[in-house]
Amino acid sequence: MIKVSVLYPNGTDTKFDMDYYLARHMPMVKAKLGEACKGIAVEQGLGGGLPGSSPAFIAMGHLLFDSVDAFQQAFGAHAEAIVADIPNYTNAQPTVQVSEVKL
Amino acid sequence: MIKVSVLYPNGTDTKFDMDYYLARHMPMVKAKLGEACKGIAVEQGLGGGLPGSSPAFIAMGHLLFDSVDAFQQAFGAHAEAIVADIPNYTNAQPTVQVSEVKL
Repeated sequence: MIKVSVLYPNGTDTKFDMDYYLARHMPMVKAKLGEACKGIAVEQGLGGGLPGSSPAFIAMGHLLFDSVDAFQQAFGAHAEAIVADIPNYTNAQPTVQVSEVKL
Repeated sequence: MIKVSVLYPNGTDTKFDMDYYLARHMPMVKAKLGEACKGIAVEQGLGGGLPGSSPAFIAMGHLLFDSVDAFQQAFGAHAEAIVADIPNYTNAQPTVQVSEVKL
């Protein structure tokens, strides 16, 4: 199983509309990716490892696929529309990570 | 639900022994945290968003807890032993992120 993680770095001027992300962006992404997307997850950053520290990422979104090929095929056809929606909920420049789920 | 993510940044000289991490480190962490830890997950970085690019993180480990307090209480008592094991599987300096699971 492959996990595609979209990590939104935190910063002093970083904004992130979690309501929009949960109610509009992620459902749109899931609908466009169709059956290739086997699951989605969303997390909101609370802090770092030490009490009172800031989180490295203000938010993270995760998408599960059977394979890298399945991700690239499903995402490629809709990348433009998905990326175009990002400014509607954040001014962060996300880092995309593709990982193999080991456990 | 709270997710504690330990993110190991990738680099040209970064080493990560996934076999040790899966077979030794994570089971030790889970045993020490006890019932406070509601789940664990491990991912291995494959690449970035563009085909052929390097992953930002060579590996990621995740631990689930009911609350930040539950994490801090469970982890605090064993932090020294857990952190001391890190050089046994990697030379990376991990970033720790505490997040609220939203979806």
